Parts: sequence; structure tokens; C-alpha cells
Amino acid sequence: MSEDIYVVGVDMIKFGRFPEQSVPQIASKAALGALDDCGLGIQDMQALYCGNLYQASAMVGQRLLQEIGQTGIPVVNVANACATGATAFREAWTSVKAGLYDLVLAVGVEQMGKGLLGGGAQKTGIPKEGLLGSGTMPAVFAEAGVEHARKYGTTFEQFAKVSVKNHHHSTMNPKAMYQIETPLETVMNAEMISWPNTKLMCSVNVDGSAAAVLATGTKVRQLGLMSRAVKVRASALTSDAWQERDLVMPDVNTCTRAAAATAYEMAGLGPEDIDLVELHDCFATAEILHYENLGLCKDGEAGKLIDEGQVALGGRIPVNVSGGLLSKGHPLGATGIANIYEVSTHLRGEAGARQVENARIGLTHVIGLGSACGIHILEKEAA
Amino acid sequence: MSEDIYVVGVDMIKFGRFPEQSVPQIASKAALGALDDCGLGIQDMQALYCGNLYQASAMVGQRLLQEIGQTGIPVVNVANACATGATAFREAWTSVKAGLYDLVLAVGVEQMGKGLLGGGAQKTGIPKEGLLGSGTMPAVFAEAGVEHARKYGTTFEQFAKVSVKNHHHSTMNPKAMYQIETPLETVMNAEMISWPNTKLMCSVNVDGSAAAVLATGTKVRQLGLMSRAVKVRASALTSDAWQERDLVMPDVNTCTRAAAATAYEMAGLGPEDIDLVELHDCFATAEILHYENLGLCKDGEAGKLIDEGQVALGGRIPVNVSGGLLSKGHPLGATGIANIYEVSTHLRGEAGARQVENARIGLTHVIGLGSACGIHILEKEAA
Repeated sequence: MSEDIYVVGVDMIKFGRFPEQSVPQIASKAALGALDDCGLGIQDMQALYCGNLYQASAMVGQRLLQEIGQTGIPVVNVANACATGATAFREAWTSVKAGLYDLVLAVGVEQMGKGLLGGGAQKTGIPKEGLLGSGTMPAVFAEAGVEHARKYGTTFEQFAKVSVKNHHHSTMNPKAMYQIETPLETVMNAEMISWPNTKLMCSVNVDGSAAAVLATGTKVRQLGLMSRAVKVRASALTSDAWQERDLVMPDVNTCTRAAAATAYEMAGLGPEDIDLVELHDCFATAEILHYENLGLCKDGEAGKLIDEGQVALGGRIPVNVSGGLLSKGHPLGATGIANIYEVSTHLRGEAGARQVENARIGLTHVIGLGSACGIHILEKEAA
Repeated sequence: MSEDIYVVGVDMIKFGRFPEQSVPQIASKAALGALDDCGLGIQDMQALYCGNLYQASAMVGQRLLQEIGQTGIPVVNVANACATGATAFREAWTSVKAGLYDLVLAVGVEQMGKGLLGGGAQKTGIPKEGLLGSGTMPAVFAEAGVEHARKYGTTFEQFAKVSVKNHHHSTMNPKAMYQIETPLETVMNAEMISWPNTKLMCSVNVDGSAAAVLATGTKVRQLGLMSRAVKVRASALTSDAWQERDLVMPDVNTCTRAAAATAYEMAGLGPEDIDLVELHDCFATAEILHYENLGLCKDGEAGKLIDEGQVALGGRIPVNVSGGLLSKGHPLGATGIANIYEVSTHLRGEAGARQVENARIGLTHVIGLGSACGIHILEKEAA
């Protein structure tokens, strides 16, 4: 149990729209990429944990093996709304921690459609009143933003600056869906979806996949892979505790605060130790709230954080240097591993133009409707 | 890692048809039953692993907590065809083995419809050619039976006797869908679905749920629950290795043989040590094949096993004393935990009229299309 667990291989595909491909085909590219990243093959993997939301009943993991090699290994298919990828990664990590395996593959994949939540949400079977009734997802995160504005005076411009920042970051990320500078006036003048979030302050529906190979420290050393290996310092998963609202409408804050507390405790670290964060900016308002939920600043100071550029590349604690869900894109089941790819890439010093200097410890965060919050803390140890 | 893990609470509902209930409502009854079985409440559980196939995208675990108590614990939703329940149980077991928790809840649930695979299969997104094209599930298991007959001379009557046995067993199981003696001529003269399986040799579409509470040995002793606790000696999960047929059409034998080998090795036991078996009799032909796949007899001797009554209650190695999928019923996502309920009940000596005398070690087996095979070996230690 005391053995450390590492990410030794990790990859994501350039997010986009691939209607002509099957979900397993989309998944296969990231899976092979992660294996290639550490010089291993599917025959070296002892188990597969596969996260996909919209085809969660359809044995995506096994069909992925049909694409990349059927070796007879255990396959576990998981689904947890927008935390699906993080949950697949966590189950993979758990299996290694349990001593069952020393090399496992975690894959997250999603093929979205067009429309609200890619049109796929209607297929999930989540009761419609929660998803499409009085509280749509845009409305929930709009409401939470308005509440933040009411309490702390956060302005429309501050919310909009989140989108400007993340779009700017994405110009340096060749795997982001968009690489377009998006000035403040463009963001603020875009079509209003649900105040204060304009269309450019909502995450981008894209298809995508991401994958990670996890290994025990013993195995990493044995394979000579420690120089690029990234240690998993913490894995936390929570659901919403009881509240006076529909379960299907997540409290935007509580389960993130609970997961953050668990993750920081498990890692023996605090927010002040984190060098970069990839958090769940499904809407610009959400990013503002999560600065506080993750302890990156005190409650009420999120507006100041964005105003002062503290969360931009080069700032005190860069957030969503990948471009985030707002510009990199948000393929639901892939997102929780894509952000592990991003943080790992920085910790390895391989992030190119968007590299966070001297990044040693990073945090990833996702939150899913109805509800699941997953947080991982990763560390690159000194050589 | 060396700490043993136990089932301390376990339950299933009487299988039936509950179209007026939601999936979480169906799940809640078994979940509360398993908690009640060990005198604990949902507030004592540290995580929930929920298995459901047809609503795998729909956050069934979190919605179950809405029914029985939202405590903010991690929820993982898993799907693995007919091995869904076994996979949820295995992930729960893995989390305890990893040292993350010492008390967790595993739940399996399914609401079937009418028609082939309850009509729900069309909703799963599994490519249609595999499920409804040239090789339907009845055809696959019929073909495998015919192949067995060709190789070993297994007769129509021998296949039919499996159904007679399991229906007889179910007359002693108040939680089975049916409790009706079904004579050989009735089975053989029923509508032919796909030779040699008549309608009474195909599993019964029902709604159902089952649940188990898992705990570390330390926790079991601390709670004073050891007298009825059942030790998990082995958990194995496999997928089909490569073969010259569609992945979506499982090889009926290979992944079971691989899982059995893994499970026996993990337990340090062999088939000769097993006192009762609940195996995946989705069709009567399947049960015959699995006698051999699980090592209950030598290859080619399955027909003899059923002829001699060795697998009936009172025989050498009773199989599907619950009535099996053929008469108890087969709610896909629940089945893998329902068979753990059945074996645990015998190991505790609480199985009433169908009690397998002096049962100390039992094996559960499920196999799912496309493919996943899950095997668990359970033991009741001497007081």
C-alpha cells in the first residue's frame, strides 16, 4: 500500500469533430499514443479502465481492445457524467494501489453531437426535469455566477476575462479545438446564453479521447521510465451531500470543496503548493467559483485573481493553460484524463510555448451533473 | 494488502416486473436490505459502487443515494454487460483492498422490458450486427450447445434436464421469479427458440436488484459481525482474447476458463474444494458448457454430471440451487450480486429448504456479451 503510483505514459488527441469514426476508433488513438509515450504495448497492460458517458452500456472498453489488441485482460467500463474520465483514471489507480496490477491503462472518450450537451444528454436517461427543465446546465452555472456577483460584487467583465484568458492559452496548445485570440469585447458581445455567460463563455462540444498508463514505482524503475514519470499524490472523488434541491442539479460548490479537502489531505499539501491547475470551466462562471472552491484564493477574491492575472500563464497560479473546456473543448468522458495529460506535460517540462515554468505539482478537477467531483494531484519528483 | 475482505451484509429483492418503479427505487430495496442485514446504515458506508446496464449513463448510483441517503460519498457507476453486477462488486472489493475504505456498498440493478434481452439491448448502443444480426444471443448459445453435442454426444434431453433441475431448485427459493416444478416433457415440448434450447431453456427477463456490504476483517471484528461474515477468497475478471469471430459475440468458453484459472489460483483452491456454484445459465446449453469451463468435471463429462444428479441439490456439487437465471430470473446488472447473495446465504446456513448441507466454500460466475467474465470465490470460516 505504501508503494507510490505513477503516470508513465499519457496522451490526448487533438479535439475536434469525428462523426465518421466510431467511439472505439476515437479512443484508440489516445490509447496507442499513451502506450507509445512510454514505449509499451497493449500486451504489457494488465487491465483496462474505460470511461465513456453516452455509450456507457455499449462495452466501449472491449471494443477498444478490438481496435488495439484483444489480450483477454479485465475491462471495466465506468460512467460518471463529466467526471467519467477522472473516475476511470481513479479506478485504474485503485487497482494498482490494491496490488492487483502493476501496469494498467485508463482511457476516456466521448463522441458528442450538436446542440445542448452535444444532443447526447437526451440519450443518457437522466430524468429530463433535471437536465432540460427549469434548471438547464447553463442556467445552473449562470445562477451560481449571479449569486457570486450578488455576494461579492463580481462583474460581467471579470467573468468574461476567464474566457479571454483560456482562449489566449489555447493559442499555444496545438491539441485544443480552437487556437484563436478572443478579445474581451468579442466575448462580452457574443450571443447571451444565460446571464452572465455569453456563448464564448460556454464550453465547446467536441469529440475527443485521452489515455494514461499507470504503474507502480517498482515497475517504473524496472522499465527505466522514472525520468518522465509523474507521481499521483492524491485521488479524490465525491458526490453531493444532501441539499434542498434536485440531486440532478449539482450544487456547484459543495462537492468540489469536499473533494479538495480530501485531496489536499491525502497529498499532505495545500493550495499554496500547487503550481498549475486544470479545473472544470464548463462555463466561465464555474471557473470563478472553483478558484475559491479549490482554495486558490479566499472566498470573495476570485474576481481579483482574474483581474490581476494571477491565474494566467506567467501568473502566480496558472489555471487552464490548456485552453480549458472553453476553448480546448469538452468531450465529456475524455476531459478527466485530458486534464491529467495537460498537467503531466507541464510537470515533464514538455508543454512548449504554454509551459508553466518550474511546474512541479499540479491539480486536475472535474465536476459532473448529478453529481461527481474528481480531483487528482500530480507531482514530478526531482531527478 | 494482506488483510482479508468480507461480505458482511447482503440481500436481493424477489425478482419480478416493476414497470411502475424507477431504477433507483428498485435498487434501493436491495441496498437497504443489505445494510439492514448487518445492522448498518448508509451513513456508515464510505463509497458506493453501482452496476446497471441499460441506464449506465444515467447516474443510477447517485440517484440511488437520493432514495436512501445522500452522504456525499464517492459513487462509481459501472457497466459490463451481464457481468455488470460482478464488476461493481469487484470494484468495491478492489477499493477496500487498496486501503481506501473499510466499509463500502456494492449494488446491482436492472429494469428489463419485454422482448429479446428485455428490449433494452437496442438502447445500449452495442453494434446491432452483433446483437441482432446473424448471431443473436440465443443463436450463439445454441451453436455452442450443438458443438458440444457434436464433440461429446450430449443429448437434447441432457440439456433439457438442466432446466428441470433449476426450475425444481427455484420451488424452494421464495425470491425466485417462478416457483413451479417443470417436468422434462414440459421443457422439451416448449416452443423451440434455437435448437436445442426451448423457451423454458432460456433465462427469464425480470427486474431486480441485489446488494452487498464489504468490509475489512478489522472492521468486521470491531463491529462484532464475524459470525455471519463471508470471506472473499478470490475475484477474477477477464475479457475474450483475440479470436476469429466478432468481439461482440463472446466465445462462450475461453474467458470463463481464463477467469476460473485466475480465481482458483488467487484462492489457492481447486474445483474439488467448491461446495456449491451459482453459474451463468443464460441458456440451458450454457450451464452444460460451464460445468467443464469451471472444472466441475472433465471435458466431455457434463452430460454425465447432469444425468447422475451430481449438480442437483443433494448431489456432489450443487449448481444453481437458487433456480438460476432460467427460473430465478436474470436482471442483467443485478445478477452478479444476486449470485453472491445466494452463495453467502448457503455459507451462512440460512438457505432454508434449499440449503446445501455443510457448505463452506462457494463460487459465483457470470459472463457478458462482448465480453466480460467475472468469478468470485467465497468462504465461511469455521467459528
